[in-house]
Amino acid sequence: MPSYTAPVRDMQFILHELLKIDRHNEVLAGFSEATPDTVAAILEGAAQLSQELLQPLNRVGDREGCRLDNDRVVTPTGFKEAYRAVVDGGWTGLTGHQEHGGQGLPYVLGLAVSEMMASANMAFSMYAGLTSGAIEAIEIGGTEEQKALYLPKMVSGQWTGTMNLTEAHCGTDLGLLRTKAEPQADGSYRITGSKIFISSGEHDLAENIIHLVLARIPGGPDGVKGISLFIVSKFLVDPDGGLGERNAVSCGSIEEKMGIHGNSTCVMNYDGATGYLIGEAHQGLKTMFIMMNAARLGVAVQGLSQAEAAYQNAVVYCRERAQGRSLRGPKFPDRPADPIIVHPDIRRMLMTVKVFKEGARALAYWAGLTVDIIRKHPESETRRKAEDLLGLLTPVMKAYFTDMGFNAANLCLQCFGGHGYIAEWGMEQFVRDARITQIYEGANGIQALDLIGRKLPAHKGRAIQLFFGVAGEFCEKYRDNASLSPFVKPLAGALEQLVDATRWLMRHAISDPDNGGAASMDYLYMMALVALGYQWAQVARICQNQLSNPDDDSFDRRFYQNKLVCATFFMEKVLPETTAHLAKLKAGADSLMTLPADAF
Amino acid sequence: MPSYTAPVRDMQFILHELLKIDRHNEVLAGFSEATPDTVAAILEGAAQLSQELLQPLNRVGDREGCRLDNDRVVTPTGFKEAYRAVVDGGWTGLTGHQEHGGQGLPYVLGLAVSEMMASANMAFSMYAGLTSGAIEAIEIGGTEEQKALYLPKMVSGQWTGTMNLTEAHCGTDLGLLRTKAEPQADGSYRITGSKIFISSGEHDLAENIIHLVLARIPGGPDGVKGISLFIVSKFLVDPDGGLGERNAVSCGSIEEKMGIHGNSTCVMNYDGATGYLIGEAHQGLKTMFIMMNAARLGVAVQGLSQAEAAYQNAVVYCRERAQGRSLRGPKFPDRPADPIIVHPDIRRMLMTVKVFKEGARALAYWAGLTVDIIRKHPESETRRKAEDLLGLLTPVMKAYFTDMGFNAANLCLQCFGGHGYIAEWGMEQFVRDARITQIYEGANGIQALDLIGRKLPAHKGRAIQLFFGVAGEFCEKYRDNASLSPFVKPLAGALEQLVDATRWLMRHAISDPDNGGAASMDYLYMMALVALGYQWAQVARICQNQLSNPDDDSFDRRFYQNKLVCATFFMEKVLPETTAHLAKLKAGADSLMTLPADAF
Repeated sequence: MPSYTAPVRDMQFILHELLKIDRHNEVLAGFSEATPDTVAAILEGAAQLSQELLQPLNRVGDREGCRLDNDRVVTPTGFKEAYRAVVDGGWTGLTGHQEHGGQGLPYVLGLAVSEMMASANMAFSMYAGLTSGAIEAIEIGGTEEQKALYLPKMVSGQWTGTMNLTEAHCGTDLGLLRTKAEPQADGSYRITGSKIFISSGEHDLAENIIHLVLARIPGGPDGVKGISLFIVSKFLVDPDGGLGERNAVSCGSIEEKMGIHGNSTCVMNYDGATGYLIGEAHQGLKTMFIMMNAARLGVAVQGLSQAEAAYQNAVVYCRERAQGRSLRGPKFPDRPADPIIVHPDIRRMLMTVKVFKEGARALAYWAGLTVDIIRKHPESETRRKAEDLLGLLTPVMKAYFTDMGFNAANLCLQCFGGHGYIAEWGMEQFVRDARITQIYEGANGIQALDLIGRKLPAHKGRAIQLFFGVAGEFCEKYRDNASLSPFVKPLAGALEQLVDATRWLMRHAISDPDNGGAASMDYLYMMALVALGYQWAQVARICQNQLSNPDDDSFDRRFYQNKLVCATFFMEKVLPETTAHLAKLKAGADSLMTLPADAF
Repeated sequence: MPSYTAPVRDMQFILHELLKIDRHNEVLAGFSEATPDTVAAILEGAAQLSQELLQPLNRVGDREGCRLDNDRVVTPTGFKEAYRAVVDGGWTGLTGHQEHGGQGLPYVLGLAVSEMMASANMAFSMYAGLTSGAIEAIEIGGTEEQKALYLPKMVSGQWTGTMNLTEAHCGTDLGLLRTKAEPQADGSYRITGSKIFISSGEHDLAENIIHLVLARIPGGPDGVKGISLFIVSKFLVDPDGGLGERNAVSCGSIEEKMGIHGNSTCVMNYDGATGYLIGEAHQGLKTMFIMMNAARLGVAVQGLSQAEAAYQNAVVYCRERAQGRSLRGPKFPDRPADPIIVHPDIRRMLMTVKVFKEGARALAYWAGLTVDIIRKHPESETRRKAEDLLGLLTPVMKAYFTDMGFNAANLCLQCFGGHGYIAEWGMEQFVRDARITQIYEGANGIQALDLIGRKLPAHKGRAIQLFFGVAGEFCEKYRDNASLSPFVKPLAGALEQLVDATRWLMRHAISDPDNGGAASMDYLYMMALVALGYQWAQVARICQNQLSNPDDDSFDRRFYQNKLVCATFFMEKVLPETTAHLAKLKAGADSLMTLPADAF
């Protein structure tokens, strides 16, 4: 049976030493409350909850799955009690607005907590996780009345939320959606249609479910310009916040999936359900996209969360499983065989995952901090820069972290040999669960298109110029630092390749947009590698500093030494991939686009 | 529901135009019988069987799985009838020795048939597939009496075979195995122990099962030098070939696995079972390895088979599913959206799979032909060269084809978006089924170690020199051919990198064996890419020839044009990966080996 120990030390390193979140205490609301002691208490509390309560239910959820009993979804054994514990512990409101009953703590801290919960039990964590997205949509687009009516109970976890976009014939292309919203005399709308792939669409964990639903108001424009966003609650809500009658929305069936069996993926049928418009008519997609951007960062963290969980179990196995001998001669000559962690190729797999998950964590939390800045910083220029960076990096993290999260889970399974393929070891569940993250909240190919089609050219490349500036200044600053050179030199080289790729795109994607599409995934990977390289170079700098000037006597020298080894591994064994991506990218679209469709 | 159409045209292209198997008619037994008409009839027959009988049972096998009823394994609905049809059609004996009732046709033709069956239903195809391995072991190591007693009924498919290596505490490291074989007065042995992960270990398809079992004769040497190979049949066999009493071997349990649910993966308990030594005492591993080499080529083909099956279904979906518009403007302005096959990133995924599976097929069948040469060629020098090449390329194909087969299945799943994650579409089954191929018959990391630790240094690098010679001569011969230059130039460059990597290994792996281990997978990938590049360059040459000098009026110009597009894609969008592998390889082992085991 797999286990999980929250990587609290690494999280604290990132929050306090890399991001230095206390720098923002004066400016960003909630940061001065996030003292090192508070952060430690929250991380330890979330760790305990995740390790002791949620993780043991991960296998249960996978085996039992969800069950549709008439139109009610029954979640796996223990989920109800676990959800209650999450709510009672105040975890759903950790970063919520204080006016709605939240604790108003930094978003970046919430991200660490959500990583733990996803590592422990991804399927379970989605019930509360999707609520955050719905909360955000109502915060962005809702009236004061709507906020007052729905948010307190969603922030407290008493109610959960969902996002309803996909229909059977339209996933990526929302312009095709058909769900209808007919205006009623009382200002409400009658919602009719069917949505599919609705995560947490129906369940028995909370007393009400607030669906955020995309639909068309008849007479509006065709395509994406005629889509509006509605609140449709499972039970109608009285003006005083009490539960009214059952709304005409129900779960038609649960999908049988490859993984995340513990989460109910529902077909939701709207049969003239009562809905309330959020924001302006026909502007629903704008709100949905803002909310989806935050959700995409959450999915990126899910990718890393599965890598972390799978990694920990692989490490335990590789330290214990004895097969063969070290290539340099027996390490344990008194035993019949050495533990397999002596083998370089086993270490290649483990190190690949280790530097991914630690680097990705640093990058994700950096992005999490930009969310705090966007939401709370008083200066518009600072907010604008944070928005540019986050917008640019969100598709990069979503796609790369989930591709690599899946690869990581597979590398960790591989360490188990045949045992990895057997269900009882739990490794194959990580693989099956991780697989969805590459698909939902916009398939990874869509992320790559978002990057090169929207984020890159927006405001004449303002965001990418900012990114080049940030990473370039770092390289410039430490260019002549001999001890940092093993990190800064490869980073500067990869950055130069990314600049080269960007120039190539500017030249060739305008003349033929297919060149952009053909290059999109290679470009996204290059940017991910550079962004991670930038994190590892910063980590290396901090660790070298710490090793030269230890803080105090309790100083954990090995922690910093090990980080330097990881940074070296990243530069030597991961970052060189940019070269291959650049060559592929520059080959253009021709060899992709030539075959007629019927020749495939 | 997925479908499958056997790629008969591509198989014929490889057999007749690329390999020109008729060149061997005079020298290799069975080749003159394999006329183009016979080959066509066999491929069409196998295609029909695979498409109509085996493929529809693929989902059935996945959903129902195998069931243990006391000590009997019940296979999924329809498997019994399908197995009978395979036997009745003579498919199990296609390439078997004529003296044992086989048809004696070329091994390479059998490989094409086995690819089809694996594409249609991998779990099912393993029942007969593993029998081939057991047949080979008896052919190599058995006495004439043993051959006469067991082989006819195994060749006919009346009995099936298994390989019993793994024990709970030993998979890769067979030196640790404990199963005991005590000599009896009558020359037989009493076999006692427990084996795990035994594919097709027990089932209801055949009247007897012949287990090939590794065990220790007490008093023999420790480690791998004290392992012997035994025949242990489910039912004892009378001297006249009739079934005797039930032997003391039974299935203790069936593993619950990630995939290949239709195949029974058994714990096999030997409780003083009667066994018969094959070959010499303590020499069992040698025979087992010969047999495993053939099995590894079979697993390589399984990797490609899952890529083919997943690909075909992805192509159908991508031609039909309409979402969004071509980046160059609507291709079907009269419809609400274009089919997703217009999108470059969708084509990137499809083309990546297409050039993998077609290139891998060419390489695998080339290897299959070397098996025929090894088995049948009268000249020892020719056999020796074929053995060298096959030995070198077998671990390369096993690891790369199965890694890529799994990646391919995932890329194809990705084309389906959310639908790919839903069981009923069948795409996630390809992923789950393909996953085992990276593990069994030697996990892929073990293949890489076999390559650099055994195959590369053997006979002072004779095999790799031969490979360099073959590929190098091709590059040299066509160096000045302008129309072939887009293929020969990149191939020559990648080959040069592989030579460079080999030199690096020679210099650095001797001084520190961990450098070899650390480099092993990158080196294997480089060799796979060069070997595939060599295949694609040859394909390009043949296609250019055909296009300049069409055979006849019925000439299928588009087939050859499309192959050239694929060859271009391989050179531009796949082969550049060698550069990244070379850089990683040359970084050496330090960043891998530095962390102490408890620091992971």
